[in-house]
Amino acid sequence: MSANTFGHAFRVTTFGESHGPAVGCVIDGVPPGIVLDQAEVQAFLARRRPGQSKLVTPRDEEDRMEVLSGLDLDSGKTLGTPLCLVIRNQDQRSSSYGDWHHIYRPSHADFGYDAKFGLRAWQGGGRSSARETVGRVAAGAVAEQALRSRFPDLRICAWVERVQRIDAREAIDPLAVTRDQVDGHPTRCPEPAFAAQMEAAILDAKKRGDSLGGFIRLVVQGVPAGLGEPVFDKLDALLAQAFLSLPACKGVEVGSGFGGADLSGLEHNDPYAWQDGSMTTTSNRSGGIQGGISNGMPLDLRLVFKPTATVLKPQDSADDQGNNVTLQAKGRHDPCVLPRAVPIVEAMTALVLADCWLRQRGQVGDPWPGLGGPLRA
Amino acid sequence: MSANTFGHAFRVTTFGESHGPAVGCVIDGVPPGIVLDQAEVQAFLARRRPGQSKLVTPRDEEDRMEVLSGLDLDSGKTLGTPLCLVIRNQDQRSSSYGDWHHIYRPSHADFGYDAKFGLRAWQGGGRSSARETVGRVAAGAVAEQALRSRFPDLRICAWVERVQRIDAREAIDPLAVTRDQVDGHPTRCPEPAFAAQMEAAILDAKKRGDSLGGFIRLVVQGVPAGLGEPVFDKLDALLAQAFLSLPACKGVEVGSGFGGADLSGLEHNDPYAWQDGSMTTTSNRSGGIQGGISNGMPLDLRLVFKPTATVLKPQDSADDQGNNVTLQAKGRHDPCVLPRAVPIVEAMTALVLADCWLRQRGQVGDPWPGLGGPLRA
Amino acid sequence: MSANTFGHAFRVTTFGESHGPAVGCVIDGVPPGIVLDQAEVQAFLARRRPGQSKLVTPRDEEDRMEVLSGLDLDSGKTLGTPLCLVIRNQDQRSSSYGDWHHIYRPSHADFGYDAKFGLRAWQGGGRSSARETVGRVAAGAVAEQALRSRFPDLRICAWVERVQRIDAREAIDPLAVTRDQVDGHPTRCPEPAFAAQMEAAILDAKKRGDSLGGFIRLVVQGVPAGLGEPVFDKLDALLAQAFLSLPACKGVEVGSGFGGADLSGLEHNDPYAWQDGSMTTTSNRSGGIQGGISNGMPLDLRLVFKPTATVLKPQDSADDQGNNVTLQAKGRHDPCVLPRAVPIVEAMTALVLADCWLRQRGQVGDPWPGLGGPLRA
Amino acid sequence: MSANTFGHAFRVTTFGESHGPAVGCVIDGVPPGIVLDQAEVQAFLARRRPGQSKLVTPRDEEDRMEVLSGLDLDSGKTLGTPLCLVIRNQDQRSSSYGDWHHIYRPSHADFGYDAKFGLRAWQGGGRSSARETVGRVAAGAVAEQALRSRFPDLRICAWVERVQRIDAREAIDPLAVTRDQVDGHPTRCPEPAFAAQMEAAILDAKKRGDSLGGFIRLVVQGVPAGLGEPVFDKLDALLAQAFLSLPACKGVEVGSGFGGADLSGLEHNDPYAWQDGSMTTTSNRSGGIQGGISNGMPLDLRLVFKPTATVLKPQDSADDQGNNVTLQAKGRHDPCVLPRAVPIVEAMTALVLADCWLRQRGQVGDPWPGLGGPLRA
Repeated sequence: MSANTFGHAFRVTTFGESHGPAVGCVIDGVPPGIVLDQAEVQAFLARRRPGQSKLVTPRDEEDRMEVLSGLDLDSGKTLGTPLCLVIRNQDQRSSSYGDWHHIYRPSHADFGYDAKFGLRAWQGGGRSSARETVGRVAAGAVAEQALRSRFPDLRICAWVERVQRIDAREAIDPLAVTRDQVDGHPTRCPEPAFAAQMEAAILDAKKRGDSLGGFIRLVVQGVPAGLGEPVFDKLDALLAQAFLSLPACKGVEVGSGFGGADLSGLEHNDPYAWQDGSMTTTSNRSGGIQGGISNGMPLDLRLVFKPTATVLKPQDSADDQGNNVTLQAKGRHDPCVLPRAVPIVEAMTALVLADCWLRQRGQVGDPWPGLGGPLRA
Repeated sequence: MSANTFGHAFRVTTFGESHGPAVGCVIDGVPPGIVLDQAEVQAFLARRRPGQSKLVTPRDEEDRMEVLSGLDLDSGKTLGTPLCLVIRNQDQRSSSYGDWHHIYRPSHADFGYDAKFGLRAWQGGGRSSARETVGRVAAGAVAEQALRSRFPDLRICAWVERVQRIDAREAIDPLAVTRDQVDGHPTRCPEPAFAAQMEAAILDAKKRGDSLGGFIRLVVQGVPAGLGEPVFDKLDALLAQAFLSLPACKGVEVGSGFGGADLSGLEHNDPYAWQDGSMTTTSNRSGGIQGGISNGMPLDLRLVFKPTATVLKPQDSADDQGNNVTLQAKGRHDPCVLPRAVPIVEAMTALVLADCWLRQRGQVGDPWPGLGGPLRA
Repeated sequence: MSANTFGHAFRVTTFGESHGPAVGCVIDGVPPGIVLDQAEVQAFLARRRPGQSKLVTPRDEEDRMEVLSGLDLDSGKTLGTPLCLVIRNQDQRSSSYGDWHHIYRPSHADFGYDAKFGLRAWQGGGRSSARETVGRVAAGAVAEQALRSRFPDLRICAWVERVQRIDAREAIDPLAVTRDQVDGHPTRCPEPAFAAQMEAAILDAKKRGDSLGGFIRLVVQGVPAGLGEPVFDKLDALLAQAFLSLPACKGVEVGSGFGGADLSGLEHNDPYAWQDGSMTTTSNRSGGIQGGISNGMPLDLRLVFKPTATVLKPQDSADDQGNNVTLQAKGRHDPCVLPRAVPIVEAMTALVLADCWLRQRGQVGDPWPGLGGPLRA
Repeated sequence: MSANTFGHAFRVTTFGESHGPAVGCVIDGVPPGIVLDQAEVQAFLARRRPGQSKLVTPRDEEDRMEVLSGLDLDSGKTLGTPLCLVIRNQDQRSSSYGDWHHIYRPSHADFGYDAKFGLRAWQGGGRSSARETVGRVAAGAVAEQALRSRFPDLRICAWVERVQRIDAREAIDPLAVTRDQVDGHPTRCPEPAFAAQMEAAILDAKKRGDSLGGFIRLVVQGVPAGLGEPVFDKLDALLAQAFLSLPACKGVEVGSGFGGADLSGLEHNDPYAWQDGSMTTTSNRSGGIQGGISNGMPLDLRLVFKPTATVLKPQDSADDQGNNVTLQAKGRHDPCVLPRAVPIVEAMTALVLADCWLRQRGQVGDPWPGLGGPLRA
């Protein structure tokens, strides 16, 4: 029983292997009546597209999305029925993977898939490839549009905060960063001086056939209070699942996170305060989430991505025949996944928020405008 | 649409508020034919019970479990039908909470529940209280027995690695720690010298009406390869959801985690190697999970818990009438949640592993007798 | 992977075996803020209770419900958290079942459970006993109260239309029947003359150690248009699942049902017509459901229940050791399940409607009064 | 929250509107390692294709399926990852529907969709069109192949038993019918004399612009004992949901069904008997299902389909502006849906059985090689 679906009320199922005919998603639960801006979805996909800069894999994919269902033919509005979004694979050079048919690439999913399924799509990692995230990004772009139709002030923004030991944390005001700033540099670090250092480090690692990891910071402003479901589907729990389900992500922290252990309770607690008739807290070590429910403050999380497992140097490994071997990878790879991970993190955030919103919809705290009644003449 | 159920094949629904008649769980999907050792479940509950030492809340709860369903009356074997486990609440001094009826406790869930539901069980936090985890622990104890019936070598072990800045990481061999060692000290730190320091720090914070946070380390040995479901229900993603759904948990990292960003790909990758006919890796920076699927190496994770939000000093806060107020908490609290969080973390781990196992059961890689063991050369 | 949960937004999990300590349910998704009338739930349970008349089994069960969770201690309002309702078993004479430990009772679930689980609670059928429906009825009673809080005109009414060949269909005006009329006779047939005939037939069958089946008719008035989810969770599809999941139910028809095949399309179609500004149809062969969605007309369905499988005459059967044997049942049984099935059918209907409503809640057609915004001072 | 997914372990999500770019499905949970015979899936689709005879709609659709994912590129084996199957729409003459943009077709889903979603794909019924079943049939064909890989003797066979009052029930031996016989006549009635009468009646109705309904009989042989999940996901309950979710289906009965009410319990019970070391029953009024679990006897069900709602005569109706109008339908339609419903019923049956099998897989009674066969003396 495999599981390729995420969400309860806004349900996304992704499909597709790296070197198969296509990747994509089916989204069930999109509210009806939203005019879908397909160009905007396409633009979101372009943000994760390979080949954008010399920092990322040169695999050349146009990633042109086709909508197979779910839209009204006249108005382009969502029908409340499933959207199927398909993106064809084009530049599949599986020959690059020829040597890897029977060899397990270190720190890749190959062995696990064989152990689990008894076979695997060995070309490019198949389903475990980051190419699978194309479907997530398409769905996330739809989710963001749905969210914005109800919460016009919602702003989801992620950026590269650190690459290896180059850490821009202190140099960035998290509430001031914009998506334009982030996209303004190939590293997706919005602070130019650090971005330049990161770029140099990534290019150096690339030259050496090596790879780098780092941190992504995520801030969401304009989140209404009341999102997230006790007990198991807390907002932070769902975000953690969403992020740890991304290739190469190895950790997540909310608000003060691991650093919060340095403080005592009195130092750490966020005092509540009414300001101008709205509830707020005078600090935000909670990262906008308390007891698993959003409190109206900005969401603030940090993710770590490991250095790309694909490196172009010889490595010790093993094959599926019981032999210990040396693997010499060829082909294309991302020397650092972080720049392309930024839109993926934003997309997953949109999926979680859309799902929490729609599970909450119609409840007491749902800031949904008074609904019309049933059809009347 | 609230969500109090965890798992797909081994499904646990918890119920109960802190000061209501009872807490407990219904477990659906327990394999039939397992002789349930109720005393062992009871012993697991005793490990999270309040009142065990002066380090934890003195709330006195016997936490006696009653099994209402799911067992064969003759043999005590599980029937394959739902187990309902009920634990009555006894020592509910809601009077301690009298002042808090309309005041939002800082960094607690009170405000979120009001925003979401329009009302809340204000006594002791109601559903958001850590008392809800009683049901999780009971279910986790059942899950562990079910797992052990198939994987006798499985060993789930968590411990307190750090309290505030007292960090025992370097002093502990993660693969050598036993549950007995952990339970041997009230702090649940298995290294005596650090445990003593932690105890002193917690008692000092308690005396000051303050609280402390810290890290929990989790290691699971004897995990078969092939557990975890691509794409969204990866083993690490489900563990992350499970842990972030715990009160006070603010972050999780797998294997090298946030520290992994310091390394390059060549330094970080775990080389595969056949050893004595079994697949292994010569390092374990992956923490036993690659591509979201267990690879047979020990699971290795770290969690951070914030300092307890309940402190006994006056704090700035706000009420539900639009007033900014000063809150003076009274009553009982845990000056540090970590010691009691250890069995809860183990229980959640058992829930995730039981669920992944049962979703995989009958599949290619299921090491179920008669079905062929895990991949062998 | 067994499945004891029904519903998506209003989720009910039942637990309990016939002769175990208790039966009951956990309900997740009850909207917050509803004052639960526990006496009314108890009264609903009394309607299915055994021992009500000589037409039904004399097993004497008080069926006293206890609410373990989910209610505000001050106001008795639902909290939006799970309700756990427990009903203790009392009059379990498992000695009556002594002979049946290893014998499969004809047309009972015994063999299937053994084939599936490898063991079974043989006392009284365990989980397959109609006693399991106690939890359904308790949940249905809660669902009905939740529904009524939003749809005050909703009226769910079922009755016994036919016992064996005694058919009251033509004598009853389906839109005029009330629950009081139905409960006014032990047969739960609202037409006195037919009710008397049915009673005589049932008592005659009882005297002979035999049993009878028949039809139940269900009409629901005051259903808003727009309930039911395309494609697989159509309102009629969910009702069909709900009813076929009841012990002894062997068929269901909606509106014209099997008789509709006699008509041509022109004869069968229900013409639409605006009446006083509301949409209506001038006939209701659709039974209030078109394309799986309620159209605002009364729901109209018919169910068949087979004659009770437990009879008190010798029957050919087989045991679990490979022997063909003669079974002589003893003990208590219902000579006709239909009277007690009436409230169970109503309860399942309430569960389906509550679930469809809450899945629809907040959608375009949701006749929910304009919702308040998030918490403001 | 709409619901376009069916199944728990073998999960099928269909997508697509009648006049949109495509229809299709995503199947999650297909066991890995099965060589998918795509031609066979295509042949199954051809059985429901329009334009096969003058008895059905002349809409001309090639219904060519494309597999976008889930197959190993080398071997054609299933990977254990989601299969996305897409079938393009071709012959969409939405001009035929021009008059219907604002008019509710009697006994169609149009009004319900508007009441629910606030808009609808009015061309050809959009999502409520029987064209949606293309995705179900494709998925059912895959399910049947998966089932056959484990249960080679499984035979799913449905046929048209009755059209209006022409009833072939008594003339057909249900256990002897083959799919070839059924497909041998355009009516899909396997008894030639009755088939001829049915054909004449359908053609006569077509000439009059009218339509007919009738019964479909379903028999499944070779079903292992132990399929179906207590309590809510009983095998008959899931089949009932599956069938009532089909357009135009208005009722289902299992085994003796509505006729079973004529019998007493002693007459109706199916005696168990060991025969040649296998458990059997000497009659099959239970229709192969007892207590919701298969008992190894043939499944035997009957479904009723109403006469097609689309007729080509003027009808009274109403529009979405509050006017009562006369509707004159044009265009293509099926004067009787039953012949094309036969493969759809078989496909839904395969979906239910595959899901029940995979939920049971690895359990005690799973007749999976190496796990012990079904219960034997």
